[in-house]
Amino acid sequence: MALRDCQLAVVGGGIAGCTAALYGSRYGLDVLVYEGGLPGGQAATAVLIENYPGFPDGVSGFELAQAVHRQAEKVGADFVTAEVMGLSRADNGLWILLSDIGEARAAAVIVATGGRPRQLNVPGEKELTGRGVSYCATCDGFFFKGETIAVIGGGNTAIEEALFLSKVCEKVYVIHRRDALRAESYLANQALACKNIEFVWNSVVVEIIGQSHVERLRIRDVKTQQDRELAVKGVFVAIGYEAHTEWLGDSVEREDGFIVTNEKMQTKSPGLFAAGDCRLTPVRQITTAVGDATVAAYFAYNYTAGIQGRA
Amino acid sequence: MALRDCQLAVVGGGIAGCTAALYGSRYGLDVLVYEGGLPGGQAATAVLIENYPGFPDGVSGFELAQAVHRQAEKVGADFVTAEVMGLSRADNGLWILLSDIGEARAAAVIVATGGRPRQLNVPGEKELTGRGVSYCATCDGFFFKGETIAVIGGGNTAIEEALFLSKVCEKVYVIHRRDALRAESYLANQALACKNIEFVWNSVVVEIIGQSHVERLRIRDVKTQQDRELAVKGVFVAIGYEAHTEWLGDSVEREDGFIVTNEKMQTKSPGLFAAGDCRLTPVRQITTAVGDATVAAYFAYNYTAGIQGRA
Repeated sequence: MALRDCQLAVVGGGIAGCTAALYGSRYGLDVLVYEGGLPGGQAATAVLIENYPGFPDGVSGFELAQAVHRQAEKVGADFVTAEVMGLSRADNGLWILLSDIGEARAAAVIVATGGRPRQLNVPGEKELTGRGVSYCATCDGFFFKGETIAVIGGGNTAIEEALFLSKVCEKVYVIHRRDALRAESYLANQALACKNIEFVWNSVVVEIIGQSHVERLRIRDVKTQQDRELAVKGVFVAIGYEAHTEWLGDSVEREDGFIVTNEKMQTKSPGLFAAGDCRLTPVRQITTAVGDATVAAYFAYNYTAGIQGRA
Repeated sequence: MALRDCQLAVVGGGIAGCTAALYGSRYGLDVLVYEGGLPGGQAATAVLIENYPGFPDGVSGFELAQAVHRQAEKVGADFVTAEVMGLSRADNGLWILLSDIGEARAAAVIVATGGRPRQLNVPGEKELTGRGVSYCATCDGFFFKGETIAVIGGGNTAIEEALFLSKVCEKVYVIHRRDALRAESYLANQALACKNIEFVWNSVVVEIIGQSHVERLRIRDVKTQQDRELAVKGVFVAIGYEAHTEWLGDSVEREDGFIVTNEKMQTKSPGLFAAGDCRLTPVRQITTAVGDATVAAYFAYNYTAGIQGRA
């Protein structure tokens, strides 16, 4: 599908973006989705999603993302593979989207660019990424079959990844800067009971060491300030993520990178909406992403129709 | 499962309630769901849900509701069949739920009682309900195979029901008080193009007539005030619905019956949350219900843990 003007441009082809496109198309809008580098978004990297309602046996993130994509296409949404690099407003009120394959206009825009894994920012991390440093157990876990690896973090993602890796790897260290997990107890209890997961509390990674591949981690006890080394073949960084919104420049109000909206998913710029993980919100789940996207599409539709929102 | 005290009581076993139970249980809370008269809630009555992300070929409401129920049970949520009739707060801060099978306590409560179809309130409606008057095309449509029927309303539900019935019935009148549909154009265009759907604009039903079964409707043109009769074997009322919250008495702030919350799904009473169709919200979809429920469970968990919400 080629770049073109449309009524509703959705930036991001993850689950929030595809849901916004699904609803926007069902409202009769001509919708174009700008799908960036990571088709399916963040969710597509999840091995097994067990908390999205409707799938009691779980669903792979890739499968779910593909399904929502197909569902949006089925009702008429078009997709274009393009990285949006900037957004501005023309004198006539239309939004101009600048992408790596050109410029196009839209009456309304829903930003659903999600986020990406946060980095440790320690020596060796960048150099050894793809050589033992990974941000996605789903994608890379099987490369470490039978090996000893470490997961960094103590939240849901870290513990989910540790549990997954414990089935593949010989041994999993979970290195966490605090002495308790932030993860849901449902997950945490499973991990604490798991025989080949060893917790390294109150510790941070200060260096990732290796020639052509990860060999050791240098970790520091934050209480004693003492360093020690841990031999691992891989390290999975799971310390949260950042909104992918820097491309917006100063055009939209953000906090910590996350786009500020009201409960109608409206930014302060008329016709510009945000949905999903890139939005400032207390909870970032697929459920909240699809909820956000539905609301954003509804008010984007009302905006294009010149109708005031009902609430 | 018997009635008992719990950490989190969820009132309502529809998709919002089951999602709240799923998330609450995953947060490690002891959850009891009070499932009322309509297991699966409003969504369970939908023939085919095409706008819930993840099901490109659609999913029956019953199937989806069952799946979410199983999913909540799988992570440990318990269900009890009981109609909650009142809610009050004990001196120790616990919530007391009064139901038709007794009284029990909970630290936090999520109200997810959804809504129910709005009635026309015209002569003959009550008398002929179940005898040709229906509020659910999904449930009753096939009783009218090959007959002429009427759908009342102009919103999404009305048009979805008209489209469904047009495949079953000989002829479908759509009686709408205005001269344009409120339904999404995606749906409206299908209905306007449908050969056996006839629109009766600017008209309201003033009486439903029949001996033992619906025989005719008396309809009034709201512009000319002239009445006429329409011979039909059935009438499907699809003029929106009301929140099922009257059982709350004066204990919670409501507007038009819908529970007022902030974006954390908190009511003004500490530990009392609402999610889904019973909440005052501009959009009532399954997507927004699961989003609401996720947020409500998260803040209910924080409340029980004595933690302030992060946002």
